[in-house]
Amino acid sequence: MSKLRVSCFGISLDGYGAGPRQSLDNPLGEGGFGVHKWHIETAAFQEVHGTGGGTKGVDDAFERKGAENVGAWIMGRNMFSPQRGAWLNHDWKGWWGDNPPYHVPVFVLTHHARPDLVMDGGTTFHFVTDGIESALKRARQAAGTRDIRLGGGVETIRQYLIAGLIDEMHLAVSPVLLGSGEHLLRDLYLLQLGYECGGTFSAGQAAHMIVRKRVNPDHR
Amino acid sequence: MSKLRVSCFGISLDGYGAGPRQSLDNPLGEGGFGVHKWHIETAAFQEVHGTGGGTKGVDDAFERKGAENVGAWIMGRNMFSPQRGAWLNHDWKGWWGDNPPYHVPVFVLTHHARPDLVMDGGTTFHFVTDGIESALKRARQAAGTRDIRLGGGVETIRQYLIAGLIDEMHLAVSPVLLGSGEHLLRDLYLLQLGYECGGTFSAGQAAHMIVRKRVNPDHR
Repeated sequence: MSKLRVSCFGISLDGYGAGPRQSLDNPLGEGGFGVHKWHIETAAFQEVHGTGGGTKGVDDAFERKGAENVGAWIMGRNMFSPQRGAWLNHDWKGWWGDNPPYHVPVFVLTHHARPDLVMDGGTTFHFVTDGIESALKRARQAAGTRDIRLGGGVETIRQYLIAGLIDEMHLAVSPVLLGSGEHLLRDLYLLQLGYECGGTFSAGQAAHMIVRKRVNPDHR
Repeated sequence: MSKLRVSCFGISLDGYGAGPRQSLDNPLGEGGFGVHKWHIETAAFQEVHGTGGGTKGVDDAFERKGAENVGAWIMGRNMFSPQRGAWLNHDWKGWWGDNPPYHVPVFVLTHHARPDLVMDGGTTFHFVTDGIESALKRARQAAGTRDIRLGGGVETIRQYLIAGLIDEMHLAVSPVLLGSGEHLLRDLYLLQLGYECGGTFSAGQAAHMIVRKRVNPDHR
């Protein structure tokens, strides 16, 4: 059964997924790199984006698992582009170069229509303007029996959590303090929304936590 | 050098130190037991309060370390008593029986004066009505070169964090969701308050995180 899942989403100890004052030069916000450090330093990440080497162990295992069995991605527009508002032009093609590391259809949530963008290596960006449920429906069709991975950012994940549409969310809590910025879980009553915590898996740089939908939401 | 420190303070994945609807029957609030499970199941806890046995490893090591070198405790009145407002009488002597597990002076923050309460085994409860700095001053005198441990609850820790008086705080993040209740870090800008994260230590039931004062708060 295909799942909508969040994998490897980094938050700070105080709960922020991005730091304050995001900008083109600093898309993760001040200090925001700290929540991604564990993941960038894994062997799995370094094999794809780096020079080899990298950490093994729990962090690496989660990084690898996150990439498995993904048939489509969904992401918010801010994860695709630093631009806000209407597209000035169609020159921006994402942060990832000509051959993005997705290799499947990617559905980008935006208020501003734009033609499909076909990249090398199997990645096509589809711009979805009619909401999160529509994006999920299209992603499900594209993914078939494989999972749909919800990338981020914070606001996009919050919308899907509130709608109760996420089946499983893996959070990596990093030992950094951001102090302010975009808080992932603030004022979300996850228990009432039908989620439970599925366990802690740690020993790497981050403490990995699994949140999942309860099978029977009436039982706590 | 004597430190003011928080040790073994449990919070949920969504950041709550206690669940909603606290009561005499349920002093930790609904679901609040989940943030203490790791600690109650350690061998260190079971040796003192239980029947022996218990978990070893990281959780147990933190539980033991938390008890070492403590010369005085500070706690909020709600950690001492389920009563609110003026003392109806002086019959309530804490949750812990005649021989509480402190064995040192304990300074209880309250708005309502009450005579010192001498218990078996070296524990004396002192009721401090003139604020957190006064309690800390008295605790420092009592502790000498040993540390002062700040027990809780959430509101008490928040007051000391905001005042910048905590030297080190060990948080144990447990894989439970409380959804609402008392949130430890909400709207606290720890970075600006001069704190930094000192690392993650995990592999037990909880992910242990250390927050400490920066030696030089001007450097981030």
